[in-house]
Amino acid sequence: MPHGHASAGQSAPPSGGKTALPATAGSTPRRGRPGYDLESLLAVAVTVFNERGYDGTSMEDLSRRLRISKSSIYYHVDSKEDLLALALDRALDGLFSVADQVTASAESAIERLEHLVRGSVYVLVDRLPYVTLLLRARGNTGTERRALARRRQFDQIVADLVKEAERDGDIRPDVDPAVTARLLFGLVNSLVEWYRPGNRATSRDEAAGRLADAVCAVAFDGLRIRRVADSTEPRSSASR
Amino acid sequence: MPHGHASAGQSAPPSGGKTALPATAGSTPRRGRPGYDLESLLAVAVTVFNERGYDGTSMEDLSRRLRISKSSIYYHVDSKEDLLALALDRALDGLFSVADQVTASAESAIERLEHLVRGSVYVLVDRLPYVTLLLRARGNTGTERRALARRRQFDQIVADLVKEAERDGDIRPDVDPAVTARLLFGLVNSLVEWYRPGNRATSRDEAAGRLADAVCAVAFDGLRIRRVADSTEPRSSASR
Repeated sequence: MPHGHASAGQSAPPSGGKTALPATAGSTPRRGRPGYDLESLLAVAVTVFNERGYDGTSMEDLSRRLRISKSSIYYHVDSKEDLLALALDRALDGLFSVADQVTASAESAIERLEHLVRGSVYVLVDRLPYVTLLLRARGNTGTERRALARRRQFDQIVADLVKEAERDGDIRPDVDPAVTARLLFGLVNSLVEWYRPGNRATSRDEAAGRLADAVCAVAFDGLRIRRVADSTEPRSSASR
Repeated sequence: MPHGHASAGQSAPPSGGKTALPATAGSTPRRGRPGYDLESLLAVAVTVFNERGYDGTSMEDLSRRLRISKSSIYYHVDSKEDLLALALDRALDGLFSVADQVTASAESAIERLEHLVRGSVYVLVDRLPYVTLLLRARGNTGTERRALARRRQFDQIVADLVKEAERDGDIRPDVDPAVTARLLFGLVNSLVEWYRPGNRATSRDEAAGRLADAVCAVAFDGLRIRRVADSTEPRSSASR
């Protein structure tokens, strides 16, 4: 789905369905309704929120974009903030699903950290508009503040893994662990600024895999090629 | 200056003065005016733009925050968009000043690239609210579109340096140069999301130096510690 160009009637669900909405949301079009279930309604709402900002979007705007009446929207949700909550949870549930897998793993901290980075890139590619909305949330509503609190929990998981990997001697100790954690996910999150899904020729999973490889290559192993001679030099700044 | 908390009356200029505004802007308070020159007016305007969004900020909002009349603002600029243009140029002029130095240098491409990254971190720390505004510009006005065009020129300089460094054999060839360039400046730009100037105990230059070290350490040399044994292994994925 090209970012910012979803039009009414497009209904491909943006997520792989891992966090499908409850069946009660109604996935079959009702008689007399133009075929929106909550899933496709949410996809359009998130696109409009990203274009105009959540605060700058009214239910009237959504109604116009969806070409359905406001009461048809209220059939699915009680308020604009409900749509925001569903959208932000879509991003956060994806990220925490990866964090839960990683936390339960028996791998070393640096391996878990790398898996968390890779998994987060997949979530970002799979749920791009939702993650974009999350990263732009500034805490203007109760819903945004709750989302930011969950985001801080996630960041804490990252920071703890970095510290553990540093204690294991697997991560360079010359950068403060808190700064390292922020740079690492700053790198991941910066993808929302330029990554756009391409044409159908490559699947979303392939694209996510290539992006995850690139992010991990840069973050964990660095851009610079180490020459063989470097390893025989004294260890102080051999490669600079 | 704590981000988002500049209040009327605070007038420390946010830049080191390298791109000082023309003297005609009037740097001495006028009789009967509450002491705003264009520089301090701009600093407050940028803070409000970052808080509320440029589109969501009216001249009325600026007048209230500055506690001066709208006509006092119009004494300095013709329109809100003039303030936006001055602010975006403040960020872009800083970045291009670094790019010009780097382009004129005789160093190798990877050294020039590292200097461009370091210099950009300094500009970001020195002019944080201006760079933040630039990175959030979405092209809603002619002024924003002109700024985005200049930003693309800057990104092209980065991409060209990455390609050159890859041709020199100094940068890993397994990541697409365009992706590398985007990740590199994604990392730099992500600083605006979390870096906040601390107390006066450390100077801004020291903070910028430490941040630049951290960014270059991660981007160029990677987080992972290479063990000595690795260098004796075959070169394919020795460190994984």
